[in-house]
Amino acid sequence: MEWTRRHLLGLEDLSADEITMILDTAESFKEVSTRSIKKVPALRGKTVVNLFYEPSTRTTNSFGLAARRLSADTLSVGGGASSASKGETLVDTARNLEAMGVDVMVVRHSAPGGPHLVARHVDCSVVNAGDGAHEHPTQALLDIYTIREIKGRVAGLRVGIVGDIAHSRVARSNIWGLTKLGAEVLVAGPRTFLPCGIEAMGAAVTHDFDEVVETCDVVNMLRIQFERQQEALLPSIREYSRLFGLSSERMSRTKPDVLIMHPGPVNRGIELAPEVADGARSVILRQVTNGLAVRMAVLYLVAGGTET
Amino acid sequence: MEWTRRHLLGLEDLSADEITMILDTAESFKEVSTRSIKKVPALRGKTVVNLFYEPSTRTTNSFGLAARRLSADTLSVGGGASSASKGETLVDTARNLEAMGVDVMVVRHSAPGGPHLVARHVDCSVVNAGDGAHEHPTQALLDIYTIREIKGRVAGLRVGIVGDIAHSRVARSNIWGLTKLGAEVLVAGPRTFLPCGIEAMGAAVTHDFDEVVETCDVVNMLRIQFERQQEALLPSIREYSRLFGLSSERMSRTKPDVLIMHPGPVNRGIELAPEVADGARSVILRQVTNGLAVRMAVLYLVAGGTET
Amino acid sequence: MEWTRRHLLGLEDLSADEITMILDTAESFKEVSTRSIKKVPALRGKTVVNLFYEPSTRTTNSFGLAARRLSADTLSVGGGASSASKGETLVDTARNLEAMGVDVMVVRHSAPGGPHLVARHVDCSVVNAGDGAHEHPTQALLDIYTIREIKGRVAGLRVGIVGDIAHSRVARSNIWGLTKLGAEVLVAGPRTFLPCGIEAMGAAVTHDFDEVVETCDVVNMLRIQFERQQEALLPSIREYSRLFGLSSERMSRTKPDVLIMHPGPVNRGIELAPEVADGARSVILRQVTNGLAVRMAVLYLVAGGTET
Repeated sequence: MEWTRRHLLGLEDLSADEITMILDTAESFKEVSTRSIKKVPALRGKTVVNLFYEPSTRTTNSFGLAARRLSADTLSVGGGASSASKGETLVDTARNLEAMGVDVMVVRHSAPGGPHLVARHVDCSVVNAGDGAHEHPTQALLDIYTIREIKGRVAGLRVGIVGDIAHSRVARSNIWGLTKLGAEVLVAGPRTFLPCGIEAMGAAVTHDFDEVVETCDVVNMLRIQFERQQEALLPSIREYSRLFGLSSERMSRTKPDVLIMHPGPVNRGIELAPEVADGARSVILRQVTNGLAVRMAVLYLVAGGTET
Repeated sequence: MEWTRRHLLGLEDLSADEITMILDTAESFKEVSTRSIKKVPALRGKTVVNLFYEPSTRTTNSFGLAARRLSADTLSVGGGASSASKGETLVDTARNLEAMGVDVMVVRHSAPGGPHLVARHVDCSVVNAGDGAHEHPTQALLDIYTIREIKGRVAGLRVGIVGDIAHSRVARSNIWGLTKLGAEVLVAGPRTFLPCGIEAMGAAVTHDFDEVVETCDVVNMLRIQFERQQEALLPSIREYSRLFGLSSERMSRTKPDVLIMHPGPVNRGIELAPEVADGARSVILRQVTNGLAVRMAVLYLVAGGTET
Repeated sequence: MEWTRRHLLGLEDLSADEITMILDTAESFKEVSTRSIKKVPALRGKTVVNLFYEPSTRTTNSFGLAARRLSADTLSVGGGASSASKGETLVDTARNLEAMGVDVMVVRHSAPGGPHLVARHVDCSVVNAGDGAHEHPTQALLDIYTIREIKGRVAGLRVGIVGDIAHSRVARSNIWGLTKLGAEVLVAGPRTFLPCGIEAMGAAVTHDFDEVVETCDVVNMLRIQFERQQEALLPSIREYSRLFGLSSERMSRTKPDVLIMHPGPVNRGIELAPEVADGARSVILRQVTNGLAVRMAVLYLVAGGTET
């Protein structure tokens, strides 16, 4: 199989084979980060730009380091002190960067479809690093990579995703990716956090975390995004934590080989009890390590993609 | 001819031969950005610092990428969270960077003469990236490069510069550079936007855009800098746009081979109708591409300059 | 002797031999910054992260350039727009960076012991770039390097440190380092700026600057950190400057071969008269130059350290 896409905008569009190709490519790049000299010349002389309209540490750093380990030149353009504050549109900013000879733009935007809009107006590659509540494909890819790496497979596994499903691009990308690869996805959260139509995406829905906790092979705990809540959707954090947090007690009822995942940063004591976050079944830091390999794979593939 | 200057502070000081030498050098660097590996080792092991006391995306990025494509190490020092907020003077900051072995400082400052002050106190090279309303030499060089590239020459052309001439370092550097190379410059703007003494710089003055629009070979539309207006110099944006904006109607009266330029970011619908900004005669994105080549040339020349 | 430490957290822990080894290593790296190609491949393919929870220009830039001259990949993570603002703990942030394959973390934190806390939780190297009022080891090392470079020795010299000793991590690290190498340290400052128990660290104490000024071989003037004063410890800046500033008059009473040092940025006219700061005996910019060499040495040594 050959990679043909110029952009990575979401997992909804990808075939199972394409997802598998990214995971396989990431596997070979993961080895690079274990070397004494953690660098390959794959993208030497290419330029990768982080164009982030929302604040981010983890994702920017992960893409930035991935680009450096591929020997690319990097540039980081924020929405704050940038041309955006001079009233420049997203498309104009992107076309200007393209005119500077940028090869890959990694775009995060609060508006769903922001990276897609950019992709329609530039000839270089665009990677979606999170667009509103729509998709966050590289996060889902690193989640799936981590599952496959430890479990040896994805098909046939039962994956629970718990929390604010409605506002979560991580959940949406995971549902698309996991179901394409044959996993069963079960989402759990309070009614205000579950969007209508989620079953149509292929996930089963429950409002009772305890249904999920005992039968799942993987439990992916979403982050309560205090900084994003527009309205008071949560009457009480304490109640949320009691109903949907992964406590030690709930942990004791999971399958013995369950994987506990979280996209980070963790609100300790809310989604996850500290002893669970740091416990033997937690793979949270492994997700971070794998994220770098997955992003190296994505940058490498799209920068060589030939799609028009 | 040999390049002898250590600094590039403005076009007022340069001879026509020196300007031509920069343009010729840029021409050879422009090819680099079209290669698959967009990098030459010209400044390997040298350090280029962006020292910007005013916010900027476009110019910082352009200089930053230019430095990377020359294989220089780069550093970006802003005025915000930096030593400036601890009360350090511009000269002390610059001398400290020099003590760290910096080879080229690219300086933007709100005070006219800021980069010149730095140049008098350091032994490394200084490039003016915009000093108040004084000069912005690399912007003018990229404008002139773009004209020469498309028209094949600069001498004998009629170039109109339209807008807020009084507060524009872009206009001043363009007037100096273009007239040295034998172009005729005509500036047009409202009375409050035209400084006294502009004729002494070699430009003709008009208050009527329509005089300019029909006879010019190049029309360079300046940006209304809303973020810089200290006083209410503009009674009405709508009136300004009607009198000095490049509408489709005015566009229809230009020479068929006119070039429409703008330093960006464009206030769409104010200086330029969107269909003109994106139209066939617009070379705005080409200016951005050429800016990188021109800045590679400038960094390369001054870093090798021997002037004392 | 072989370097065995994985971290550099402070000078209190180091032996005289270890300090000397850092200075000797810095000496060989200083030569690198005088070359036309200021770069060695020592840390190629390694990643150095600046993790700064307090604003800094000088120290960040110095570490950043030191890392680049060793050919390391670099990343800068600030406390502002970062995960810290999403409530992530210092240890979680550090463990996440570690999971991305970072080799050295350079940590500045307002809490004394911040870098030590990180060091206990990660396997990569940690360098303390300033922790509250506790230690700033690389600043003291560059001070000591500069003294040794010019005076040819440290043992037997009399070094005065003047100013706000109580809140100064620079003073504390200098006292530990200098006394270990056999220098005599005398600290001078107003009563509110002298901590209890400073004699136990090995320094003599005086409230009279004039005692220091005539007999010292080195005078290290600390910075009044206006941005850090929690309470009104200084009734009057003018009085402070009169009693503890290094005026031209006081300068005239120093030893003819005295060295005047300052960690920067200088409050001109407060700690130092401008003509003293720029005078023949001032080595302030030399300190900056040496800082880069010392930081190259520290990054190089810890990145190769084998301590567990």
